[in-house]
Amino acid sequence: MSLTGLRDAVAAILRPDQIITDRARLRTYECDGLAHYRVVPGIVLLPRTAEECAAVVRACAGHAVPFVARGSGTGLSGGALPHAEGALIVTSQLRAIREVAPEDERAVLEPGVINLQVSQASIPHGYFYAPDPSSQQICSIGGNVAENSGGAHCLKYGFTANHVTGVQIVTPDGDLVNLGGRAPDAPGYDLLGAFVGSEGTLGIATEVTVRLVRLPETVRTLLAAFTGTDEAGAATSAIIAAGVVPAAVEMMDALAIEAAEAAVHCGYPAGAGAVLIVELDGPAAEVDAQFAAVVDFCRGHGAFEIRIAADDAERALFWKGRKSAFAAVGRISPDYIVQDGVIPRTALPQVLTRIGELAREHGVRVANVFHAGDGNLHPLVLFDEAQAGQAERAEAVSGAILDLCVEHGGSITGEHGVGMDKAKHLPRMYSEADLDTMQLLRCAFDPRGLANPGKVFPTPRLCGEVPGRHRGPNPWHERGMEVF
Amino acid sequence: MSLTGLRDAVAAILRPDQIITDRARLRTYECDGLAHYRVVPGIVLLPRTAEECAAVVRACAGHAVPFVARGSGTGLSGGALPHAEGALIVTSQLRAIREVAPEDERAVLEPGVINLQVSQASIPHGYFYAPDPSSQQICSIGGNVAENSGGAHCLKYGFTANHVTGVQIVTPDGDLVNLGGRAPDAPGYDLLGAFVGSEGTLGIATEVTVRLVRLPETVRTLLAAFTGTDEAGAATSAIIAAGVVPAAVEMMDALAIEAAEAAVHCGYPAGAGAVLIVELDGPAAEVDAQFAAVVDFCRGHGAFEIRIAADDAERALFWKGRKSAFAAVGRISPDYIVQDGVIPRTALPQVLTRIGELAREHGVRVANVFHAGDGNLHPLVLFDEAQAGQAERAEAVSGAILDLCVEHGGSITGEHGVGMDKAKHLPRMYSEADLDTMQLLRCAFDPRGLANPGKVFPTPRLCGEVPGRHRGPNPWHERGMEVF
Repeated sequence: MSLTGLRDAVAAILRPDQIITDRARLRTYECDGLAHYRVVPGIVLLPRTAEECAAVVRACAGHAVPFVARGSGTGLSGGALPHAEGALIVTSQLRAIREVAPEDERAVLEPGVINLQVSQASIPHGYFYAPDPSSQQICSIGGNVAENSGGAHCLKYGFTANHVTGVQIVTPDGDLVNLGGRAPDAPGYDLLGAFVGSEGTLGIATEVTVRLVRLPETVRTLLAAFTGTDEAGAATSAIIAAGVVPAAVEMMDALAIEAAEAAVHCGYPAGAGAVLIVELDGPAAEVDAQFAAVVDFCRGHGAFEIRIAADDAERALFWKGRKSAFAAVGRISPDYIVQDGVIPRTALPQVLTRIGELAREHGVRVANVFHAGDGNLHPLVLFDEAQAGQAERAEAVSGAILDLCVEHGGSITGEHGVGMDKAKHLPRMYSEADLDTMQLLRCAFDPRGLANPGKVFPTPRLCGEVPGRHRGPNPWHERGMEVF
Repeated sequence: MSLTGLRDAVAAILRPDQIITDRARLRTYECDGLAHYRVVPGIVLLPRTAEECAAVVRACAGHAVPFVARGSGTGLSGGALPHAEGALIVTSQLRAIREVAPEDERAVLEPGVINLQVSQASIPHGYFYAPDPSSQQICSIGGNVAENSGGAHCLKYGFTANHVTGVQIVTPDGDLVNLGGRAPDAPGYDLLGAFVGSEGTLGIATEVTVRLVRLPETVRTLLAAFTGTDEAGAATSAIIAAGVVPAAVEMMDALAIEAAEAAVHCGYPAGAGAVLIVELDGPAAEVDAQFAAVVDFCRGHGAFEIRIAADDAERALFWKGRKSAFAAVGRISPDYIVQDGVIPRTALPQVLTRIGELAREHGVRVANVFHAGDGNLHPLVLFDEAQAGQAERAEAVSGAILDLCVEHGGSITGEHGVGMDKAKHLPRMYSEADLDTMQLLRCAFDPRGLANPGKVFPTPRLCGEVPGRHRGPNPWHERGMEVF
C-alpha cells in the first residue's frame, strides 16, 4: 500500500484542483451523516468524468490503496466514512443530467446529480423520480444507488432498486462495465440488483439510468390526531388490510411532535399522542373513493381530529413537521441516535409498546418518527453525552431495538444501510453460510478488499484477510490486463 | 466425472423409485418445451426434500458430474435440456405449499408447486399470485424462479423477480443457503435478484417465499378489432402515454387470429387485421374512469368493433383465443419457431412492419401474438420441415428478428430465458467486459461449471474451461468443507 505512489499516479490523471492532500481540507471529509465516527482520509480525489474515475480506481488498484466513494455525504450509517490510509473518491463533480426521455420513461444521470434535480427536470414532461429520501434536496443519485435509499413515498413506489434499470460502474480493478440497461429486464445475471445497495463494496457507479414515473392526476393528504401510537398503528393496519395502497403513511409520536413544534411551529393538533400523515395519489376517481375510506378508518380507530389539506400550502405544512423531525430533535436533546429498523406492519403496536418499556428501563427518552405503512421504524434515542453513562445507555437501547426488529421477523435496517454502523449486527439476521455466500460475490469483484473495506460485513475475513492470496478466477486478468 | 460413482452414491440417499437409469424412462426427459434440442440424461434423480436435494448435489459435486435442474419442463429456451453425461434433478416431488400468510402477504412454497396452485390457495383469503405465464396450469414455481418468468399481467404487476422475496437454495457445492427472506428488503448484497433468472447456473431453489397481491375489486376486459397492427399499436401507445396502466394489453395479428379461430372457435370480429385485448383491474372507481378512456383511445385509433366482456364467461372467451394461440398455430403450419424479444413500445409499428418484410423476403409466414403493453414480442415463424430449405429460412428470419430487437434498444428475450437456444445471441447485447463480469459471479458460485453447463453463456471459457484449475476463493472450502 503506497499513498505516495498513488499521489504521483493521480497527478498524471487529474488537475491539481481535483486532488486534495492538505490536512485542513481533508478534515472536512472526515465523516458523513453519521457524525460519531470520524476518520481523516489519506487523500481526496474529485474525478469529473467516468474515464477519470476509472483511471483513479485503476491507480488505487495499482498501488493497493483502499478507496471509499462518497456522493453528498448524507448517509446515516457511515458508509462513506473514509479510510485513513486510503483515497476518498468524491463523485460530486460528475453532475450532468445526460438525458430525460419521457417517451421511454427513463432518465440518464451522472452519479453526482442531486435526487431532487431529477424530478425538477422531469416535472415539465409530466413525470417524476419516485424515491424521495428526507435528504432529497442534497443527497446524490450515486449515494442513493449505493445505499438503495428509500423515502416516505416508497410504500407505494418502492425503493431505489425498483427504479434503477441500468448502471455503468467502475469495478475495483478500474474497468468500466455496464450492468442492466434501458430495458425493464435483461437476460443473464441480474448483477444490477446486487450492485444497488452494495454500499460501495463492489465498485463505483459512474452513470445511472432510472425509471421516471407519471405524475399522479391527484394528490390528497390528511393529518389525523390520535391519543396514542396504538390507535394510530391500528388505523394504519386497517387501511392497508383494506387493500388501499397510500403513497405514504407516516407516524410521529408525542415526543417527536413536541420536537417538531419547537423547531418549525407546524401547529399539529394539541394533545395528540400520535399523528398520522396519510397521502393518496393516483387517478382522481380512485383517490377520491379511497380517501373517504381512509378518513373512516382513522375515525373508526379513535382519531379525534382529522385535517384535510385544502391546497399545496397546507399539504406542505403537514409535511414540514414530519420532514424536520430528525433535526428538530436537537431542540429537545443535546445528542441522539437515529435508529433504522423494519418490522412487519402487524407487529407495530407490540413493538412500539416494548420500545417504550426499554426506554423507561434504561432511563432514556425515545421519539418515534417513521414510515408506518411499511413498518420502517426510525426511533430517535435521546441522550446527553455530557452526563456519565447516558451514551452507553442510549447505545444499549438502540441495539435492543434492533434485536426487537429481528425477533419480530424484520430487519436491522430499512433504508439507511449497514455501512460502518451496523456491520456488527449483520450476524443477527444471517447465518455464517448466508454471509459466506455474500462473500463469494465480494471476493469475485474485489479479492483484495480495496473497495470500501470494513463496511457492511462484520469481519473482513476470507479473501480480504490475506491480501493478494485469494486472487481467484478474475476474467480481466485472463484477458491479459495486469492490475499490479 | 463418474456417473457410476454417482449412481452408487445416490443409492445411499434416495429410494430406488427416486432414481431413474432405465434408458426408455430416461428418454421421457430428453427435452423441455423447446423440443428441437434433445439429449437423453445420464441419470434422473427425484429428491423429495431440500435435504435430499442438497445431498444429491453434493454427490454430483463429489463425483464431478454436471447436473441440470428441471421443474415441469415447460421452458421454451431449452434451459432444462439434460446433459448426456450428467444428472437431471427433477424438483416435481417437492410440491408442498408450506404456508399461506395473507396477513403478511406472503406464501412459502416448495419449488415443484404449480404456479396456478398458488393463486388457488390464496384466493379464498382475498389474494392471488400475480406472475401468470401462459403455461401456468402446469409450470412450476422453481422453474419460474430459474427463468424469471413473465406473463400477460406482468405489464402491471412485474415479473417473477418482483414477487419473490426469499429463496432457500442448494449451491453447486451442495450447501443449503438462504437468499433474501420474508421482508421486502434486506441488508447485504441482493443475491436473490441475481439468483432469480439465473437459469439453474447458480444452484437449485428448494424453497421460495413469494409476495401475494390483493385481489382487485374489479376486473374489466375489452376486445378491440382493428384493420391492422399499425392501428392497434398506435392505440396501445396512446393508452400507455395517457398514464393508464392496464393489467394487460395483448395483441394478435391476422394470421394468429386465423390460427386461434381454427383451433378454439373464439369468434373474434370478422375481418380484423389485428385485435387487442385490454384488461384493467383495481378499485372500481379507477377502473370505470380509465376503462372509458381506453374505449375512446381504441375508437380514436380506428377500432371498428369493440366488445366489452359482460361477465366472467365472456372474459374467459376473449382470453381463450389468446391463450391457445401458440398451440393453435400447429393447425395452420406443420412446424413453427416461437420467438421472444423485447422492443420499446414506441417502436412497435416500425418493428412489426419490418418483421412483415423479413417474412416476405424469406418466403415464410410469421404470426404475431404478444404482450403489446410492454413491447414483448412473440413472433411465431411458420415453416414445414419436410420442404427443403424452409427450416433454415425460418431460422434466418427468427435470428433477424432478434437483431431488429437489439437495433431498437430492446432485448433478445423477454420472458422465455436464454437457455440453450439463445446463448449464442448474448454477445449481441453485451460487450466482452459485461459478459466477463457475469462470469465473475458464475465462477464464484460454480468454479467447475457443473450447474447447468452450456446454458445462458455463449462459450464456457474461463473458470469452466479448465476444470479444477480456477478454484478461487470459496469460503465453504475455507471452512474445511471438502467437496472432492
